[in-house]
Amino acid sequence: MIAYINGEFIEEEASVLQVSDLSIQRGFAIFDYFRIRNYIPLFFDQYLDRFFNSAAMLGLQPLHTKEELKDVINELIQRNNMAEAGFRMILTGGYSADGFEPASPNFIILQHPIQLPSKEKFSNGLNIVLHEYMRDLPQIKSTNYLIAIWLRDKLKQQKADDVLYTKDDVVLEFPRANVFAVTKSGTVITPGENVLKGITRMMVLQLAEKKYKVEKRQVTVNELYNAAEVFLTSTTKRILPVLKINGQIISGKPGAITVDLYNSFLQLEISQ
Amino acid sequence: MIAYINGEFIEEEASVLQVSDLSIQRGFAIFDYFRIRNYIPLFFDQYLDRFFNSAAMLGLQPLHTKEELKDVINELIQRNNMAEAGFRMILTGGYSADGFEPASPNFIILQHPIQLPSKEKFSNGLNIVLHEYMRDLPQIKSTNYLIAIWLRDKLKQQKADDVLYTKDDVVLEFPRANVFAVTKSGTVITPGENVLKGITRMMVLQLAEKKYKVEKRQVTVNELYNAAEVFLTSTTKRILPVLKINGQIISGKPGAITVDLYNSFLQLEISQ
Repeated sequence: MIAYINGEFIEEEASVLQVSDLSIQRGFAIFDYFRIRNYIPLFFDQYLDRFFNSAAMLGLQPLHTKEELKDVINELIQRNNMAEAGFRMILTGGYSADGFEPASPNFIILQHPIQLPSKEKFSNGLNIVLHEYMRDLPQIKSTNYLIAIWLRDKLKQQKADDVLYTKDDVVLEFPRANVFAVTKSGTVITPGENVLKGITRMMVLQLAEKKYKVEKRQVTVNELYNAAEVFLTSTTKRILPVLKINGQIISGKPGAITVDLYNSFLQLEISQ
Repeated sequence: MIAYINGEFIEEEASVLQVSDLSIQRGFAIFDYFRIRNYIPLFFDQYLDRFFNSAAMLGLQPLHTKEELKDVINELIQRNNMAEAGFRMILTGGYSADGFEPASPNFIILQHPIQLPSKEKFSNGLNIVLHEYMRDLPQIKSTNYLIAIWLRDKLKQQKADDVLYTKDDVVLEFPRANVFAVTKSGTVITPGENVLKGITRMMVLQLAEKKYKVEKRQVTVNELYNAAEVFLTSTTKRILPVLKINGQIISGKPGAITVDLYNSFLQLEISQ
């Protein structure tokens, strides 16, 4: 696959950074990740807005305007000629003279094949565990996944599919997804603060608001255990039901509102 | 300067990582940093032990044994022929197939000139501010410095030299240094847990234990404000007095025990 790095289109294997880059030295970088469906970027403006917001919050200056970036990405789509794919844009702290102070950022775009969850995966749902942790600067999509990757052994041991971060009995987010719950009275709830504002989360909120009562607010762990339905949202997973939390069964199968929102989301994708 | 990367000695500018490396993708890497004095690595075994411990705690397999690593570093010292220098060893999560699961690690050693603080810098001491934060997995020397670099603007605005992390009124550490205090009764105290165990910290503790009462334990913010002396320890700074915290003067000049430990540390360096 062809990648894009600092103005050049080259094979990904040849895309390199000098070791003085602040992403390598100090984990200092932001990124974003979006999908194309039949060559068309989904929710393109929303992803680009978030990418630029993350950059601004860390004081990193993107190499392109949003319009320039759209042109670059469209050229990459043509060159790689892959209809369904994921795109990762990374903006780093650059080649730091002293290994600490940010310099002129380096910018990378990678395109990769993407495997969306099957209908079977949706039906089977997820078995998750909780872990006490809040991401640093959670509103920024930084490359800091130290805890997430460190936790992979715990997940394997517990035969869990994913881990949901909680802090002081408040529900936050998955390392790479947002969480929703449906209360027994049918209200759709999702944490309002101290999480990354996912683009799939945003779209699902818009869909849910058309038909259901929706609340973006603090969600407690107790509310989660007592929910009628729990699901996650992410760019690479769309919507996946959570059926078990820390060994406790939430629901035996995907709930009606989860299924409805999933079908609505598939329709929304097609309409883009 | 010549660097070392995955078995090769090459110019640092030519030392690169493919962008799939997990340090770039997910900030997943550990490192360590030691000094040479007159071509001799100071406290070499202690630094290597910590490097191997950090690697083990993240499940990263170093490319060399400690003895092999000493040979590599000694060859680098000969090739670069610089008597006083700092060495940064970085071990990354490797070229990940899926951008999340660690692969065979990449290993880098960089040698750079080092500027130790002058006597004037020691006499002037530091003006620091506090910030509520605890590093993720603080006992591991990971490359996660997101908060530290993000805080640099706050430091500039407040004309502070450094920032000390505290959590729930408990004193922790600087982003790149440990903190010590001397109580009004002459006891040397330093946080015992939830900090990176610095090698200079270890050496200063050993020196202090010969002459003073020493306690490694929880230190409160209130104790810090009421201390007779406060100082930091780090590989690149040795010992530096802290004279002002959040605008409050701790002492007008470096304290007697700080000065004594500093002189003892200089003697210890010479004896290596």
